[in-house]
Amino acid sequence: MAFELVKTESSSKARRGRLTTAHGVIETPVFMPVGTQASVKAVSPRELRELKAQIILGNTYHLFVRPGMDVIRHFDGLHQFMRWDGPILTDSGGYQIFSLAKLRKITEEGAHFQNHLDGTPAFISPEIAIEIQQTLGSDIAMVLDECPPWPCEYDYAARSLEMTLRWAKRCKEAATTGQLLFGIVQGATFADLRRQSAEALVQIGFDGYAIGGVSVGEPEPEMMQAIETSEPFLPADRPRYAMGLGTPPQMVEMVARGVDMFDCVLPTRLARNGTAFAAEGTLNLKNAEYTRQKGPIEEGCTCPACAEFSRGYVRHLLKAEEILGLRLVSLHNLHFYLNLMTRTRAAIEAGTFEDFRRQFVHNYKARDEAGT
Amino acid sequence: MAFELVKTESSSKARRGRLTTAHGVIETPVFMPVGTQASVKAVSPRELRELKAQIILGNTYHLFVRPGMDVIRHFDGLHQFMRWDGPILTDSGGYQIFSLAKLRKITEEGAHFQNHLDGTPAFISPEIAIEIQQTLGSDIAMVLDECPPWPCEYDYAARSLEMTLRWAKRCKEAATTGQLLFGIVQGATFADLRRQSAEALVQIGFDGYAIGGVSVGEPEPEMMQAIETSEPFLPADRPRYAMGLGTPPQMVEMVARGVDMFDCVLPTRLARNGTAFAAEGTLNLKNAEYTRQKGPIEEGCTCPACAEFSRGYVRHLLKAEEILGLRLVSLHNLHFYLNLMTRTRAAIEAGTFEDFRRQFVHNYKARDEAGT
Repeated sequence: MAFELVKTESSSKARRGRLTTAHGVIETPVFMPVGTQASVKAVSPRELRELKAQIILGNTYHLFVRPGMDVIRHFDGLHQFMRWDGPILTDSGGYQIFSLAKLRKITEEGAHFQNHLDGTPAFISPEIAIEIQQTLGSDIAMVLDECPPWPCEYDYAARSLEMTLRWAKRCKEAATTGQLLFGIVQGATFADLRRQSAEALVQIGFDGYAIGGVSVGEPEPEMMQAIETSEPFLPADRPRYAMGLGTPPQMVEMVARGVDMFDCVLPTRLARNGTAFAAEGTLNLKNAEYTRQKGPIEEGCTCPACAEFSRGYVRHLLKAEEILGLRLVSLHNLHFYLNLMTRTRAAIEAGTFEDFRRQFVHNYKARDEAGT
Repeated sequence: MAFELVKTESSSKARRGRLTTAHGVIETPVFMPVGTQASVKAVSPRELRELKAQIILGNTYHLFVRPGMDVIRHFDGLHQFMRWDGPILTDSGGYQIFSLAKLRKITEEGAHFQNHLDGTPAFISPEIAIEIQQTLGSDIAMVLDECPPWPCEYDYAARSLEMTLRWAKRCKEAATTGQLLFGIVQGATFADLRRQSAEALVQIGFDGYAIGGVSVGEPEPEMMQAIETSEPFLPADRPRYAMGLGTPPQMVEMVARGVDMFDCVLPTRLARNGTAFAAEGTLNLKNAEYTRQKGPIEEGCTCPACAEFSRGYVRHLLKAEEILGLRLVSLHNLHFYLNLMTRTRAAIEAGTFEDFRRQFVHNYKARDEAGT
């Protein structure tokens, strides 16, 4: 078994687990930094190791477009290419085909599209999505799915779901290597479709189950509902992954709802805009109030940025558009996300997760400048 | 004595020296990475230490404009602000007032200007330039000078030189702390003015002597001539610093002409453009030929980028505009410059500098894509 439950909670659905992959063991709940183009933006593999990142994510669509599979194959896969020897999860490319590519046409066979860089036409089917992820050599591959937009009509969601299930079956049949393969629960905001999707995927049988179609612009209650209406129909002995999520309190709330894995661009994206995460909410470090502050970005933080540099200096770097500013805030934010999951795991192990959750969410929401 | 000559050469004017500053001892000849805005672009202080940078440069004009002396004073100087505990040299701000600031007016008293960021009017006199550098707390301060453009008429160069000498005297009188103070030889391309400038500065007496008004667009023979016509009139027991120089072969040629210190933005500026330095000349890493190359940026290089990453990966990062790409090429280029001076020092010590110089300059010029 690739996944083992180490501890469960009685007062919530939070789980402490352990997922074994070809490149190492992952302690869950886990946050996965996003390395879209074979690089987690602004940080190096060495820094990721020092931050104790357990697994990173690569985006199949982006890597398929550039540098292309020919180059990745020549370098013997993504691990070798980017020199990250820990586990990698790759998405299937579906989400980016729907959100980024031009002139896309979806048929039963697969997705025709023109890439967003130079318009080169391409075609990705479920079988090709698996083949690409095998070439990338990721430890965890995802099935190709159609991710409906929000809001979405019931009929469209139901029809899309049917095709996504047929695609999932084809992915399963195409996946013949030792790579772990995760199914993706769709069904938009409709409880019966979520259940139908989860049950059909479990019937096919996957190494893990993602909840897709979340973080696509829907309000937070609908996001939570998508999890709550999917989770009861997923097997306890497989990891659950909420795709593209979320804010720090959202992740903690999702853990309480039985989710084990997260990925999100917020820590690195907001860093490039000068926004830092902290226990009491986000700070915009470009604000004038930080100009003369000698303390670290966050008091008590053990990240490499806070260990050495002051808010005043980081603010200066951001205002002066120095790359070191983005680097330091990216390191801090990634540490914040990774450390939040470390603390979550410890709380589940100690049986104090409910207290941890209540206190963290309360403190965080008390002062969130960015409204994330 | 702050400066000690460890070894001299019989076949050239190359010198192996040692300069003692408040924050450490500097082995010369030395290259100083440029940290214009309190950051060497794209690299961290830790990385600079790992690259064995001995001293860095800060730009007085830029720091005066942003974050401003009020903030620097609050943080107890530039070392504390940017967390670099090695030696720092600051320029006087003169060069940037002449090249960057708007609406400047030069009088005997000093330079009136509006800064290039928001047009705020400011005034810097020789006394103020020293006071600012004392606030910055640099180990080596420079006198305020007027840097004439190239080409420059004799009469203008002569008049400018006279005022620069009076300013140098005022700087010396204002410098009352333990900071080392360097004079700046001007005189454009005129041998008699260079001699006059050097002799007058030596009369005033400084801890070191810079050769200014070079690297301002003049052809290389005129640059070399500016050094050759200044150096004979500078005392052997004081360090000589060629400001804003240069390409790798130019530095080696300047060492042969008796120069001990260099600063240059080329390693970091060209890195941001994808250009890497190598023993045989520069490489534009964005070129398609590097797409599939598994070797490092430069074969045999011991820098952190070459130790881990391939040309193909670095090219991908540069094409995808990933910050890690700029970081890796910046590290490599700074290592190249720093290592070139390490090899230069070793060659002088071993008495093989002339062979080293001939071979290095020959190999480098054999293949220089960037024409630097």
